[in-house]
Amino acid sequence: MRALTKGIMLLGASAILPVAAVAEDHSAPNGEKEANWSLVIHGGAGTISRDKITAEKDAEIRAKLTQALDAGEAILAEGGDAADAVIAAIMVLEDDPNFNAGKGAVLTWEETFSLDSSIMEGATRNAGSAAGVSATKNPILLARAVMDKSRHVLLSGAGADAFSQEQGLEQVEQDYFATPHRVKALEAFKLRMNAAAKGSAKAMGQDALGRDWRFGTVGAAALDESGNIAAGTSTGGMTGKRWGRIGDSPIIGAGTYADNRSCGISATGAGEYFIRVGVAQEFCTRVRIAAEVSESPPSAETVQKTADAVIAEMGALGGSGGIIYLTPWGQIGYAFDTPGMYRGMASSAQPKSVAIYGDE
Amino acid sequence: MRALTKGIMLLGASAILPVAAVAEDHSAPNGEKEANWSLVIHGGAGTISRDKITAEKDAEIRAKLTQALDAGEAILAEGGDAADAVIAAIMVLEDDPNFNAGKGAVLTWEETFSLDSSIMEGATRNAGSAAGVSATKNPILLARAVMDKSRHVLLSGAGADAFSQEQGLEQVEQDYFATPHRVKALEAFKLRMNAAAKGSAKAMGQDALGRDWRFGTVGAAALDESGNIAAGTSTGGMTGKRWGRIGDSPIIGAGTYADNRSCGISATGAGEYFIRVGVAQEFCTRVRIAAEVSESPPSAETVQKTADAVIAEMGALGGSGGIIYLTPWGQIGYAFDTPGMYRGMASSAQPKSVAIYGDE
Repeated sequence: MRALTKGIMLLGASAILPVAAVAEDHSAPNGEKEANWSLVIHGGAGTISRDKITAEKDAEIRAKLTQALDAGEAILAEGGDAADAVIAAIMVLEDDPNFNAGKGAVLTWEETFSLDSSIMEGATRNAGSAAGVSATKNPILLARAVMDKSRHVLLSGAGADAFSQEQGLEQVEQDYFATPHRVKALEAFKLRMNAAAKGSAKAMGQDALGRDWRFGTVGAAALDESGNIAAGTSTGGMTGKRWGRIGDSPIIGAGTYADNRSCGISATGAGEYFIRVGVAQEFCTRVRIAAEVSESPPSAETVQKTADAVIAEMGALGGSGGIIYLTPWGQIGYAFDTPGMYRGMASSAQPKSVAIYGDE
Repeated sequence: MRALTKGIMLLGASAILPVAAVAEDHSAPNGEKEANWSLVIHGGAGTISRDKITAEKDAEIRAKLTQALDAGEAILAEGGDAADAVIAAIMVLEDDPNFNAGKGAVLTWEETFSLDSSIMEGATRNAGSAAGVSATKNPILLARAVMDKSRHVLLSGAGADAFSQEQGLEQVEQDYFATPHRVKALEAFKLRMNAAAKGSAKAMGQDALGRDWRFGTVGAAALDESGNIAAGTSTGGMTGKRWGRIGDSPIIGAGTYADNRSCGISATGAGEYFIRVGVAQEFCTRVRIAAEVSESPPSAETVQKTADAVIAEMGALGGSGGIIYLTPWGQIGYAFDTPGMYRGMASSAQPKSVAIYGDE
């Protein structure tokens, strides 16, 4: 049920090269096809199993994941920018009501929509995030505006809404985000909370972060032909979240990280645990140090083991969820401890693939 | 102008022991005094030099730093808890108008006070943070309430204010936080901004994150007799901050981290750069991996070099600031790239010390 690794490895490299050099040398000594670009996406992890998803929904999700990959591929295959590809892929998922980001976001305790997003570029490690925004149609575009048009990394609440308007991003009414299944989910959540503990913080947390949960956060990471990595994440957060709760998605180092020296990564899951472990950065730092210590790019196996170890560490604290990742050396992979994760990958060197369940 | 290291090292240990075992074995084979507890604090870093500070202010700052150390020591020397000591030390600085936290916080662009705080415990890696709160007298107490009384890690804005009230924490009017020198600082900032670029995001960021700046954020890290580490940070953020900007102080992994396997750390500086590097977690992860690779506690020199390297990495991106740290092996230190940092350390093994300038 863990993680597929379909990485392409640069075998025989004798030392860690400067990023640009590594990125330019995509030749694979053992005759494998060149890996000039790669892309990996997710649409959330959780208690996703065949008995819980209809054949129709299964097909719908796969089609949408494929569409998101196509949107990113269209940019990367033309030599386009990693951040552009990440944004294109994420926007497809934000616009689809099946995923908990943009349209289709979950509701807060106060029956509003409060959206979080982040993006990071691995060349400069520049980053932008937004937390608790209420009216931006595509929150990932706001993350990018924060990165490109301000000197800040993280904007929040009404201030982030004002910045979004000032930047001319498309604003929508809250109704735009609403879907019947999320309204029902909040009603069910409130019934459980009110019955159990009258909505106390402790009980709410226990329920919301329990293992029988589905996280519909979306995210993407891309490596472009110039050797630049980008990663991004977008979410509506947790159903019934209160008190201005911010999860891991807009936190650089927790839900998103990108560094041309090591990786691009986006996470989905019980955000609190991802923050405490610092999942995204922990993965990148471990991969980078593994490369530094061995003075060569880490093997695909090492990278996957690192991903699994970071997820296990998060799980040991009581959390649950998953990550998607890619490296500057062409490896692409997933790691998750939930029954399923909506996910997909594409690259110049391998056939496109999407998957839902843990045994795929 | 860098970093003093006055660490105590457990020489001769042949392997990394489980945390509890390391913590219990404070004997120093070379006859050094036992290091049962340690405490390190800061009150911000920046363009702090002798020509900019009067003798009276110098003495006032040193007295207050000493008082903060005393407050933490009173708990640690009695075998008390690391988190309690961190909170006691930070509250002294929050209550003092000289520091940019609690009373004496800087003003936002909208002429309000918007406070951030965080705390983390190294035994469980449990953590709590608050961003953009407006009425909690001691924001570090709110961070602790988030950690202990909710299953969330980060609460923000009006929601965090509501949670604070619900938890019965002391609420104050915004006027409580106000001090004449911060009002003047905002006026000066607005004049510069309005003259330069009519308050545009880009110009504001450039000014606010420039190197001629003083960051009055406060923080503390403690190691208690049980071998548990805690760290916390509290701040008013940047003068003239807008759009609900959140800096590194409430971000676990950026401004604060604690892990019994590696370190306790609190940061101060140009928060955006600390987030992008993930300074607090990066330091802890590097120290932990250094210990794992060598199968023994890293030397004080290795730890200090790691601290310097992480600050240098942050500086290479264009940022500026400093950190305080301690390890489970009794090392205590600072690293900063600013002319000065308000700081102090105390432990069961060495005389208490406070310092302001880089050459102390």
